[in-house]
Formats: sequence, C-alpha cells, structure tokens
Amino acid sequence: MSTETSIPTRSATADPAPDRFDRTPRTTASRSRDRMSYDREAAHAVLDEAWHCDLAFVVDGEPRVLPTLHVRVGDTLYVHGSTGGRPLLAARGDGLRVCASVTLLDGIVYGRSQFHHSANYRSVVVHGVATLVTDDEEKLSVLRALVERTGRGRADDSRPPSRRELAETALLALPLVEVSVRARSGGVRDEPEDLALPHWAGVVPLRTVAGEPETDPDVTAPVPAYLG
Amino acid sequence: MSTETSIPTRSATADPAPDRFDRTPRTTASRSRDRMSYDREAAHAVLDEAWHCDLAFVVDGEPRVLPTLHVRVGDTLYVHGSTGGRPLLAARGDGLRVCASVTLLDGIVYGRSQFHHSANYRSVVVHGVATLVTDDEEKLSVLRALVERTGRGRADDSRPPSRRELAETALLALPLVEVSVRARSGGVRDEPEDLALPHWAGVVPLRTVAGEPETDPDVTAPVPAYLG
Repeated sequence: MSTETSIPTRSATADPAPDRFDRTPRTTASRSRDRMSYDREAAHAVLDEAWHCDLAFVVDGEPRVLPTLHVRVGDTLYVHGSTGGRPLLAARGDGLRVCASVTLLDGIVYGRSQFHHSANYRSVVVHGVATLVTDDEEKLSVLRALVERTGRGRADDSRPPSRRELAETALLALPLVEVSVRARSGGVRDEPEDLALPHWAGVVPLRTVAGEPETDPDVTAPVPAYLG
Repeated sequence: MSTETSIPTRSATADPAPDRFDRTPRTTASRSRDRMSYDREAAHAVLDEAWHCDLAFVVDGEPRVLPTLHVRVGDTLYVHGSTGGRPLLAARGDGLRVCASVTLLDGIVYGRSQFHHSANYRSVVVHGVATLVTDDEEKLSVLRALVERTGRGRADDSRPPSRRELAETALLALPLVEVSVRARSGGVRDEPEDLALPHWAGVVPLRTVAGEPETDPDVTAPVPAYLG
C-alpha cells in the first residue's frame, strides 16, 4: 500500500489549490522583499525536504518555541508531539495560534566585504491556528506518513501503533493557507568598488548527509534498501 | 589579531559563570524531563556549532518567528538583522521579549515499532529580553565574530564595515541566563516484546557537510586555507 494514496487530505475541496498563497500583513516582509515568494510548490518542497520545524506560540503573553518533527500531507502541515506537551494541551478545543518555521541552510556566502557575508537558504513560515487531531484514522495515516519520511516503505516495515501508543501520541494540524517562502541563492553580491580587493569571495555549499546506518545489536535483518 | 581576545563580553562580572543555568518554570519541560539539561558548556557547544537560530517574539499577541544567524560571545547570544526588521525595531528601548531556539539534528532513529521512531538531536532554547546593540565598538566586535564563524581568519581577510554599513546592520543581544538544553542520543529504545520482530532497527546519523568552495568569477585569490 502506497502512503501517497492512503492518506486522506483535509483540503479535498472542489476547487484546485492555487499556485500561490495570498500575501497577508503577517507574511509581508518589512525588508528584502525580493527574497520573498508565495509559491505553493516552493513552500511544499522546503517542508518536504526539511526534517524538523520550530513551532512558536504564546503562553501568558510570552513567546515559546518547540522544535519538533513534521510532515506535510496535501495542504496540511502536521507536527508531532506528546499528549502531555504544552502546545498540544493548549490546542484542544478552538486550537492554538502558532507560527511554524522551517529552514534549510544551503550555503555560506563569502563577500569581499564583511557586510556582504551572507547565507544561502530556503525558509518557510506558516501562520495559523493549529488544532489537535482527534480522529484515529487521520492520526494513523499521518503517523504512517511521518514514518514514511524516514524511508519509502518503512511504514510497512515496522509495527503500527497499538491503541495505547496511539493515545499517547498527539498531532497538531496546521492548514497551509498563510504561508511565505524566504530564500537566497546564487553567488556573492559585492559592491562594485570592492571587486578588486585581494580577498577570496564565493560560496561554500552546505548539505545534510546521512552516514552509514548503525544497526541495533539484536537485529538480524539486513539494512533495508530504502536506507541505501 | 585573534577574535578570541578582541571581543568584549557583556558578562564580565567578578563571579565566575556557573556551570549550570538555573531552572525556571519556562525552562522546565512538561514531558521527557530526562532529556533536559541546564549545562552551560553543553548549551554553548550547540550554539557554537549551529549556523542559524529561530527567534520567536510576540506581535499584537500573536507568535512570530524569524530565522536568522547568530554568534555566541561569552555569555551573550547575538542575533543578526537589519535595522528595518520588525524585531529589531521593537527591541529599541526596553528590549523585546524573545525565545531563541537552536537545533542540531544528529540522526534518525528507526525503532521496530512506528511509535519508537525518533530523532537524535541537540536543541537549545533561550528565554529573555533582547536589546539592540547601540555601541559601535561592540557592534564591530560582534560582526567580526560573526564573520569569524565562517572561517578562522576570515575577519582579517575581508573588508570591515563602513560607517554606513555599520549603521545599516542591527544586532540584538540576548543574555544567556534562562537557558535549557534538550537532547536525545544513542540507539533504539524498543519495547522488549518487539525485539524479535523481523524489522531492521538502528540509527542513521546525519551531519551537515561543506561542499567544494565555488569561487566568484572575478576572484584571483586562491581558496583560503581556513576553508579547507
């Protein structure tokens, strides 16, 4: 069974989803607006590539951040938590106003001037109200999707959650409606008068790589192909 | 001139800094308390290794997150921004209440059960009031430290900021006082009754690696040794 087809999406409406998210005051940058975009595919790509996200919310008027794991299913961002976690408790009922942030760092930019040192990155910010997922079928599907992120086929190659485990796991659903992408790519942008300076300039690309799988002592199964 | 010695620290008090941060209600987890620590060196190590941080703050009662670059100098976390940025504007005067989050993802944990899939990570959260750095000497020193993070010696091998560039750059200073570290490391923690399941289990380590430097077209200088 493919995860692609087994997960119900919350956004099954008659209208196809738009290619671009509507810009709102919250998703309008006060600076470097040329780095902003509202492209749906670009946002999805960042959310699908990144392993973790930061979930910000407000407690007693003060900011809090919880780093957590996420998975996008259709036009919903799901974040993982425990039923005892603060934001999960707060998200019962009407939901919790959150700001989710996902960042991929693609490189370090070395300008001839210190001022033009920078980073190449792709970053998505999502504003909205996150609600607790209460439907067991939806929970099971999303947990499958979370596990599938770790390797295509892993969901079928692992034991599904028991009733107790399902009850101990909490998921928040955040609709991908108010979304912005901020990105920098490409090379150095130095001042023209700096081009003759004797300093090296350029970009050092960064990427996240997986090392050799470290097998648990009691395991007899070989390393699965989906980790290759 | 070594950056190590050139940067004034804000925390130059008569008492040596404690090895551990005091725990507060804000830095006490509601779950998995065994993953929490308040160790100063551990927190510094995470802040020094990570390239970027997420800065959360509250605007009109709503959460906002700004991904940005940071540098730790002594017991102060400095984050970088532009003078026009929302949080920087808000941090003038009495400062801005923030929650800064830095996460390093060290691996993906594959349990025999979906429930025990997890991640190895090291994460630091800092609560406090961030204030705008207004002293030009401090600004110059911190910008040097930011540039030095990209390669030891780079600050001397690049043009320092002009007066105009310095005015266009804003830095926030956040004291490292209310700080917590959350981490998971090690292998799989499956249920005893799952150990005989036929599924592979183990950890796939993740790390961020630098690729080959991509030299800007007009550069004649060789790739510097500090990028090797």
